[in-house]
Formats: sequence, structure tokens, C-alpha cells
Amino acid sequence: MNKRSLPELRLKKNEERRLRAGHLWVYSNEVDTVATPLKSLSAGEQVKVCDQRGNTLGFAYVNPKTLICARLYSFGRHPQLDAGLIRERLATALAWRTQCFDEPCYRWIYGESDGLPGLVVDRYFDVLVVQITAAGMERLKEAILEALTDLVKARVVLLKNDTPARELEGLASYTETPVGSLPDSIELVENQVHFEVPLATGQKTGWYYDHRLNRARLSSYAKDKRILDVFSYVGAWGIQALDVGAQSLLCVDSSKNFLQVAEQNAKRNQRADAIETLAGDAFDVLKQLQAENRRFDIVILDPPAFIKRRKDMKEGTQAYQRINRLAMKLVEAGGLLVSASCSHHLSAEQMKNEIRRAAMKNRQQLQIVEQGHQGPDHPVHLAMPETEYLKAFFCRLLPGY
Amino acid sequence: MNKRSLPELRLKKNEERRLRAGHLWVYSNEVDTVATPLKSLSAGEQVKVCDQRGNTLGFAYVNPKTLICARLYSFGRHPQLDAGLIRERLATALAWRTQCFDEPCYRWIYGESDGLPGLVVDRYFDVLVVQITAAGMERLKEAILEALTDLVKARVVLLKNDTPARELEGLASYTETPVGSLPDSIELVENQVHFEVPLATGQKTGWYYDHRLNRARLSSYAKDKRILDVFSYVGAWGIQALDVGAQSLLCVDSSKNFLQVAEQNAKRNQRADAIETLAGDAFDVLKQLQAENRRFDIVILDPPAFIKRRKDMKEGTQAYQRINRLAMKLVEAGGLLVSASCSHHLSAEQMKNEIRRAAMKNRQQLQIVEQGHQGPDHPVHLAMPETEYLKAFFCRLLPGY
Repeated sequence: MNKRSLPELRLKKNEERRLRAGHLWVYSNEVDTVATPLKSLSAGEQVKVCDQRGNTLGFAYVNPKTLICARLYSFGRHPQLDAGLIRERLATALAWRTQCFDEPCYRWIYGESDGLPGLVVDRYFDVLVVQITAAGMERLKEAILEALTDLVKARVVLLKNDTPARELEGLASYTETPVGSLPDSIELVENQVHFEVPLATGQKTGWYYDHRLNRARLSSYAKDKRILDVFSYVGAWGIQALDVGAQSLLCVDSSKNFLQVAEQNAKRNQRADAIETLAGDAFDVLKQLQAENRRFDIVILDPPAFIKRRKDMKEGTQAYQRINRLAMKLVEAGGLLVSASCSHHLSAEQMKNEIRRAAMKNRQQLQIVEQGHQGPDHPVHLAMPETEYLKAFFCRLLPGY
Repeated sequence: MNKRSLPELRLKKNEERRLRAGHLWVYSNEVDTVATPLKSLSAGEQVKVCDQRGNTLGFAYVNPKTLICARLYSFGRHPQLDAGLIRERLATALAWRTQCFDEPCYRWIYGESDGLPGLVVDRYFDVLVVQITAAGMERLKEAILEALTDLVKARVVLLKNDTPARELEGLASYTETPVGSLPDSIELVENQVHFEVPLATGQKTGWYYDHRLNRARLSSYAKDKRILDVFSYVGAWGIQALDVGAQSLLCVDSSKNFLQVAEQNAKRNQRADAIETLAGDAFDVLKQLQAENRRFDIVILDPPAFIKRRKDMKEGTQAYQRINRLAMKLVEAGGLLVSASCSHHLSAEQMKNEIRRAAMKNRQQLQIVEQGHQGPDHPVHLAMPETEYLKAFFCRLLPGY
């Protein structure tokens, strides 16, 4: 297929600015639907995107039913997203991860940032967990699977196509195992520490690699320390701290299953003696620990996104402040609070502000000693703030002023 | 002296908000000079700061002649900044640095962030380099020196009181060596790499510890790579990269003296064979390298502050974009540009934007793989954005889209 045979998607006047700045998304209200009716296109179809005057802006796949109606995969060099281009983008991303990490455990593809909008691939040695969240990618499923298994020897490929995002795209929710058979658990290494996570209990793709560098930094402070890991999930932060010689670890999570996995992983790393767990709502548990006058040298606060959509902004922001106030009170003088947020809508500046407000209300004095972000296997697209979401503030508690 | 005997500095109505949010500075136009004339106070005098109704906001030292006419050292617990409180703050800061670093080489005191406005202390083993930039601190010079030498065994204390900031405070410019005698050079260790820097040629206090963690991250990518270190000063980035096995290093700086020190340090670390230097204006040298079709796997761009004052904003921002365009062109496909800025006035978002614009104009595709900040011995005061200035973006060059 050559360039001319692709259908056109024409934008309204002045609606090309975002794309000209390097962004990859077209919103449906930006399309000149008189000239190029969206409803004449099918979900996943590839198009040439033009400005009002007919100048080519790039190439995209569309979904006429969604708010983000087109996602660009090229600014001009690649009219088609086909098996060849998919393989090229996968190989480019793989080369980077191979350079970054000693072990083949990482997010191999992070959607738009890696030039493959709507595709996420996590790697756990020879197990690949794939998520497709757009119709344009769903159409290319076979080519993706072929390129993945061609580039690395995969024992298992799990398609975890059950995210809510798929519903918006009009895609069915399913999981399947096109390569190998579904294992009970996945094994992985992060910062030289081994973990095993049952797939049945796992959240999302099973592991959050995004905090890798932040956990490594935390470990540099953890020797001999008493650690509280709030919203611990399977203990990624805390167990890495134990591995470098933390004195003790208390994991708090709402799920007894996850805490059990954390205990197993502590055992796996020869620190079964040092881990305690507490199941319950984090807000309640922190209040209870305060009532018991417990103190920790390091408190890790890595909650799920309190702000999933912009409309959650007010309530979510308050929740961040509230949980930070509770956590801060449990930090020993001279100790650290590691406060994270994975809410894209809450900027680093806003997050910093909530920590500041929490400290003022508590009449506590803190200084920020480190600021962390998502790791190098979750690259940020320069022109797409939407690809940036993770923040971790390392705050040190000072004596009162 | 008890609380009541301190002179009062009364703020105008509603001017207490910044202090209530935790900030430490009072601007002269916020003072109710009818109730409490600034000119009745002497430079460096300690006062009680009150809101319009007479509620105590904190305690500060003043300088009636400067725009920032008062700097708080306490929100209520410590009416006086005296030998005891200085020692306490120095000890608190020292405990943190000792926890952070294996070797006694770090910024020991970073002004406001460490509760000692107007004081900076850098440590190079048993050599201390002290800078005092406010009249309130100058008055306490003896107490500071006593506490410093009491807390650590200092062979040399150098007072490098020759910064332009002192003139604004009405303070004389001088350097002196109250302890020991001025050495020819200082030795230090950063990320396990040894350096020696002549004091005569040194900038500021001789070394910039602030990029320590960023340099460590760079080193994790540097093995076998060809490195270009632009605005290299004495080679801190590049020589640490050589130490982990970088293939080659080209240092660019306007000063032949600094480049000579870089060469000596490469030799000191057994990599004299791998270093080249080029003296000249960075903009010119980068153009020349482009003309010669030179390419590097990693380009480090760590310029001096292009935006020293807000009025430099426009010109400085353009300079950042221009130098980033030049540097980006020298990066091999798949390679890294490490682009730093130490201009406080240029926010991380603005800096990111300039890198994006540079990439668009060059028609190059980049992704941000890491974001770095000033290290833990340059803590950020939660309520004072003025204490945050350093940004480093690690950008990976992708194949064209």
C-alpha cells in the first residue's frame, strides 16, 4: 500500500498544533468531519492525518468511537504500522532495556513513549505479559506476537486483555495464553533481589517495575532501619530494604493475599524473621499505629492512584494530604518519609505542595532530600505529559523549628 | 535574652501568608515600617517577627538595607540563633550527610534548607570551605567556626567570603584561613572516584557536589561508550564515566586551566590515554564537531546558569534551546543526551519544553529516560522553591519517526 491509498483524516483549522509539537493524539472534536467523516472509518483502520490545507502531519490508526480518535505512529516516514515497523520498534526498545538492566526483567514496551500506542509488554525472564488497549493494536495482534517471540525466546506469552480501557475502545475483555501455558506465578529480579508473584493474585501485569530506581535509592538508606511499607502490595520496597540489612519491616495492605506473598518473598530472601504484616485499610492502620505510639526510621507511602480521572482531583488531593499527615507522624526524628504518587493528574509541584501542607498542619519540619520518577523502562515521551505519572519524594524529618 | 527583649518586626496586614506556609524570608515591602521602622534596626540584628495583630510568626535576623530584609531561623521554638542552636543545626545536617555518604566529602550546610540561612559549608575530608552571604551570619562567624571545628577535626577552614551576594548585604569581600593554612589543592571522593582540584583555579567552593547522583546514574550507562563532556570544568562527569570503563572522553571548556586539571585527574585515575580536551566557546566547539561529522554515544551538557536573574529569562531560555540543538546533533542513534540546567528560574517543565523544541527543530526524536535533581546534601526546603535549582534530563535518541 502506498501513501496515497490510505484514507485521509483531515483536521479543522489550527487543530494541528499539538501534533506539530510532537504529540501523538487526535481528539474527535479536532477532526473536520465534513471533509473526512469519522464514521466512514472502521475501528483500527490506518489513515493519513492532514491539516486543513492538506499538508500531511503523520500517519495514525483510528477509532471513530473514542474521544482519542487517532493515535499517530509516524510523523511521515512510515505510512503503515505493519509487521516490519512493529518489529523495528520492539527491537529499538529491547536494545535500550538490555543496556539498562542486568536481568531480562522490565517493561519492554511502554505504549506511546516507545512508538507503539496502545501496547504494553512486561518481561519476566522468558514470560511476556502483553496488554493491548486500542483497536488499532488489536488488529496487529498476530504481527506483535510473532515479532515478540522472534526477538526473544519466550516460554510463555500471556495476553492480559482485561483492562477497563478496552471497553472504551469497543474491544472484548479476555485473557489468553497464545504461547506456552499459564504458569501459577512469575519470577523476577529487581535491583538484584529475587521475587515470585502468583499470577492469580497479581495486580495489573503482576509487578510494578516503574519504582525500580526509587527502590534502589531507598535501599541505600535502609541498613539497620525499622521500615514501614504502606500499601505494600507484595512487598517490593520493603523486602529490597530487608535485603540490604534493614532491621525490621512492617507491611500494610488491604489484601491478606498480597501480604502472604510478601511474607513468602521475605522468606525466599532469608528474612522471614524480620517481616510483620498488618491487613487493613491504610488510613485505619496508620491511626492505630499512632495510637500505639509506634515509630519507624523509614515510612514508605506508595498508594494506588487516588486521582484516576480529573474529576477526582479535589477528593484525591485531600486523600494524599490526609495519608501523608498520618504517615509523617510515624516517622522517627531524623528519619525518612518516602511519599509516592502514581496519579498523572497530580503534578510533582502539586504533590510537593500537599506534603508541605501536611507537614504544616502536623507542625512538623521536613526537607526533600531526593526526588524520584518512573524508571528508564517507562520512558517519558517528550511531547506527551500523559506518559509521565510517577513521583517519589524522599523527605527527611528535622527537629522542630 | 528572653523572647520579650527582642525587638519586633511587624508585617503589614495579610503579609504573613508566606511565612505561615513555611517560607523563611520577609521582603522589605511587607514590613509595617510605621510600627517598626526598619532603619532602627542594625544589619544582622535578631528580631521577633509578628503579624499585624501582634501574633508571633517566628524569629529572624534582619538586614534593613536589603530586599530580603529578614530571614527566619525559627518559627517559635528558638528566639535566638546562638552558638547552641548553630551547633545543633550543624550536627543535624552532619548526621544526615554521614548517613548518606561513605566518605566525608559533601556539602555539609546548604543555607535555608538546613536551617542556617546565609551559610554554606563544603567539606573535603578535613578541609572545610565556608561561605557566609548574610549580615546575620557574619555576626556569628566565631560561633560557626567554633562549632564546625568542634564537630569534626578540621585541618583547614577556608572562609571564601568573596561572592557578589555579600555586596548586596553590605559585607566586605575577603577570603581568609582561620584554621590551618591554605592548601594548593583540595582532594575529594565522589561516587568512589578520587579527584584533586587546585584551589586557585577552582570555581566557587572548588567542586559541585550537587550532580553527584546524576553522575552516578550516568556512569551506569557509560561502559565502552564515547563520551563528550561539554562545559566540563575539571571533568567530574566524564572522568567518573572513564572510571567505569567508558571508551573515550572529550572534555570541552572555555578554560585551558580547568581542562589541564581534568587531564591530571584522568591520569590520576589511570585513564590518561582516554581523555582529549578542546578549549573554546562551547557553542563554537559544538558547531566545529558537527562540521567534522563527529558523533558520541553520550553527550553531557552541564552549562553554567544561563539565567542568573529573572530578566535573563528570554535570552537564557533561547541559549538553552540553542546549545541543546547543537549537542543533540552530535548524539549517535540510540545514544544519550544528558542535559542539565542549574538556573533556578527555569523550571523543570520549561527546561523539558526547550529540549522538546530543540528536538522538533532538529527533526530528531527523543524520549526522556531519567530525570535527576540536586543530591541529598543539597536538600530542598519544602516551602522554598528558591532552594531548588538543579535539573538533569537523560534523553535517548530514537530512530526518526
